[in-house]
Amino acid sequence: MQLLRDASSVTHWDREVDVVVIGLGCAGAAVALEASGVDAEVLVFERASAGGGTSAMSGGVIYLGGGTPIQSACGFEDSAEEMFAYLMASCGPRPDEEKIRAYSEGSVEHFEWFVRNGVPFKPVFYPDNSGEPPTEDGLVFSGSENAHPYRPKIRPAPRGHVPEVPDAAGGFLMQKLLAAVAGSDAELVCDARCEALVATPDREVMGAVVRVDGREHRIRARGGVVLATGGFINNREMIREYAPQLEYCSVRVGAEGDDGSGIRLGAAVGAAAVHMGFGSISLPIIPPRKLQKGILINAQGQRFINEDSYYGVLGEHALYRQNGCAYLVLDDETFERPKAPREIVATGESARELEEELGLPAGSFGATLEFYNRHAEKGEDPLFHKAPEWIVPLRPPFGALDCTAESSIYAAFTLGGLRTSPFGEVLTPDGSAIPGLYGAGRTTACLAAPGYSSGLSIGDGTFFGRRAGLRAAARAA
Amino acid sequence: MQLLRDASSVTHWDREVDVVVIGLGCAGAAVALEASGVDAEVLVFERASAGGGTSAMSGGVIYLGGGTPIQSACGFEDSAEEMFAYLMASCGPRPDEEKIRAYSEGSVEHFEWFVRNGVPFKPVFYPDNSGEPPTEDGLVFSGSENAHPYRPKIRPAPRGHVPEVPDAAGGFLMQKLLAAVAGSDAELVCDARCEALVATPDREVMGAVVRVDGREHRIRARGGVVLATGGFINNREMIREYAPQLEYCSVRVGAEGDDGSGIRLGAAVGAAAVHMGFGSISLPIIPPRKLQKGILINAQGQRFINEDSYYGVLGEHALYRQNGCAYLVLDDETFERPKAPREIVATGESARELEEELGLPAGSFGATLEFYNRHAEKGEDPLFHKAPEWIVPLRPPFGALDCTAESSIYAAFTLGGLRTSPFGEVLTPDGSAIPGLYGAGRTTACLAAPGYSSGLSIGDGTFFGRRAGLRAAARAA
Repeated sequence: MQLLRDASSVTHWDREVDVVVIGLGCAGAAVALEASGVDAEVLVFERASAGGGTSAMSGGVIYLGGGTPIQSACGFEDSAEEMFAYLMASCGPRPDEEKIRAYSEGSVEHFEWFVRNGVPFKPVFYPDNSGEPPTEDGLVFSGSENAHPYRPKIRPAPRGHVPEVPDAAGGFLMQKLLAAVAGSDAELVCDARCEALVATPDREVMGAVVRVDGREHRIRARGGVVLATGGFINNREMIREYAPQLEYCSVRVGAEGDDGSGIRLGAAVGAAAVHMGFGSISLPIIPPRKLQKGILINAQGQRFINEDSYYGVLGEHALYRQNGCAYLVLDDETFERPKAPREIVATGESARELEEELGLPAGSFGATLEFYNRHAEKGEDPLFHKAPEWIVPLRPPFGALDCTAESSIYAAFTLGGLRTSPFGEVLTPDGSAIPGLYGAGRTTACLAAPGYSSGLSIGDGTFFGRRAGLRAAARAA
Repeated sequence: MQLLRDASSVTHWDREVDVVVIGLGCAGAAVALEASGVDAEVLVFERASAGGGTSAMSGGVIYLGGGTPIQSACGFEDSAEEMFAYLMASCGPRPDEEKIRAYSEGSVEHFEWFVRNGVPFKPVFYPDNSGEPPTEDGLVFSGSENAHPYRPKIRPAPRGHVPEVPDAAGGFLMQKLLAAVAGSDAELVCDARCEALVATPDREVMGAVVRVDGREHRIRARGGVVLATGGFINNREMIREYAPQLEYCSVRVGAEGDDGSGIRLGAAVGAAAVHMGFGSISLPIIPPRKLQKGILINAQGQRFINEDSYYGVLGEHALYRQNGCAYLVLDDETFERPKAPREIVATGESARELEEELGLPAGSFGATLEFYNRHAEKGEDPLFHKAPEWIVPLRPPFGALDCTAESSIYAAFTLGGLRTSPFGEVLTPDGSAIPGLYGAGRTTACLAAPGYSSGLSIGDGTFFGRRAGLRAAARAA
């Protein structure tokens, strides 16, 4: 398919508006709301029969901080500076300082934006979990803030903001955003597939070609086209080319539309795609949180991470650094049935027996255990610095939970995508903006890749989506 | 800079030829020789004042096998099937089967191509090293063929073919290829920078815009433009965006021209760039080979790899999986001065003393050593399966060689680049070929990323360069 059409080939436009938005997940909704809010004429095209996308599959955790009313009500102090420090420390080897600065400093206002758009948050902290709580509580830890190497250097604050939903139903956040879009002046066309961008030979994007009811519509976008079509976890060919490790993850988190169409459209007009090899990989060993008292070992029977790290970080380390081979070893004291389905793959009356059942080299886990227990007696973990409250010596008999990519839950979505400026402008490999082209959400590269914390996708998708919407609207004006 | 020009804006061509080659390293030379060999009119543009590029900085190891005359003369059996099996097993999580098949099956003929072009190989195997030998010997192991997990499943054969050079001078191979190009009908223009590709709105590449003597020349390429400008290790901005870990490597292996210009030109016309996060990272702990008898440990005092792995594999694991923190621990028996500058950063009369000097947790290296020695007594390495000949128990006193990215040699170049077909056609993210655009060498993605073996860059650069040259020539005819 020809993803780029030359503007000179378009002899007439079927429609002319200020801002064209492709895709109506949370990012597209943020674009539409902000752009229409400054009186731009906005036209949103959604490929499915209704908006929602992958955002509608999410429990709705949003990574926000810097001292939101919910954080304050729950008794947590936070500041933009501390949020910035945590994100800079956790978001990969070369974090995007400018974006992280904007995101941290704008976070409280962004929280209020959600509230203005009808999203309620209950000012109650849920302590027994990380990520989505099983209750309607509004605040959780959704990253590794409490774990080494962040604590105590950076004062930890929970930043996972969770919409208050009566029955913890997924999709609630997106329902609210869709209702807000419906109440705005933005116009929505569903069952509409964007087939191409229209650009001048100089690569100024003039509009888009959208197929609706079997017919091509050429839509002129005076301000710009905003790509917000999601990631590419459901495009097998792209996964193989760009992020082959993700193919080994058992669960693909993404709506059908997460097939990379926006990334391909952007690339066709010369955009850079970055961090394409990375995914968010959730390896949920908790809840219950007590299971963090176990130890995660690799194919050599070695520990490789502090087990109280956030489950996205556990997944990244297990998949990329341990070839997806890990087991969580527990004893009778520390065992409790994990909430997520996770099989007991081995048991042993002794370390030796467990090694045998797991096929580990004789004495390997035994040596790991001996070292761990010796320090655990003192509440210490000199190797990986797990927080003291999760450290207890483990005593036989032992059991091992399956944490392998091959046969347990590794829930993955892609974090790589189009490179954008802090204002949502899509950039070329040279770093220059492509006039008239904007992007938001997982069509664009995530703030963190690697180093994901839950809530960053809805967070950066809506935050930079709003900015993209404003920029595109301003360009039209 | 506008890297793409619309064909309609080019009102006249300054020159019209069959094949335009951008860059004259080994890949560009292969393109030029093959295309001119089938009577295509070939014009080569080189940005520097003479050809050579990064290839001229190389010792000239070429990864070839399948039963070359040099392998046979040295008494090694090899087959295309075994070479294929090794490359499929070693070249990353999702190797390109079609390319590896072609490369393995065409390898003996490709060896002969080098000989035909004046490159001599001495039929002597050099056993004491891997990678470039310090002698004029012609055959070495240049990958992990002898190491776990390849041996004994895949019969090992040395495949590093090294040109016979009187004084082991770098650049000899490239001198020979440049002489062959000079003796061919291909025309070479130096001090010539390709500024843009010229393409139709449908993305058919028609030619290139090249700046020579301060003036733009528009060159029509009837068959195609072949991008062979090298990698991007010397483009700091691109390294930060695409391969941030490489910024921590102390040595950048690349001519000045390795600034990603070819990748950017390709991207501007809609090409996909893949494996962009990966580099070849050489962490040479040998020669002398005896140093493999030491054990490599990480920041937790744990071993993390079989030390007889190829130094490119050691570098990948140390950088990407251990955050660039590693030490090689030796005792009096196993120590010998390393050939590469590598400092002794700690010594200890006991494991405990060494831990203290290295700042490792008390007992961590001690536990590693105890386990290692216990099995080493029996010549075994149940954790990582180092080959028995390199396994001896280590006895105090100990010394540790610096193998950190921060302060020792990590020599890096990029392995990611434009996605190409097995015939050198440059591909879009959808996998379709861009008509009239070809690529070869490190402007394109390497066969192995990760999983590099030395000699693969000159190997795949020339092998697929030849194919690109033939394809472009055929398209012109």
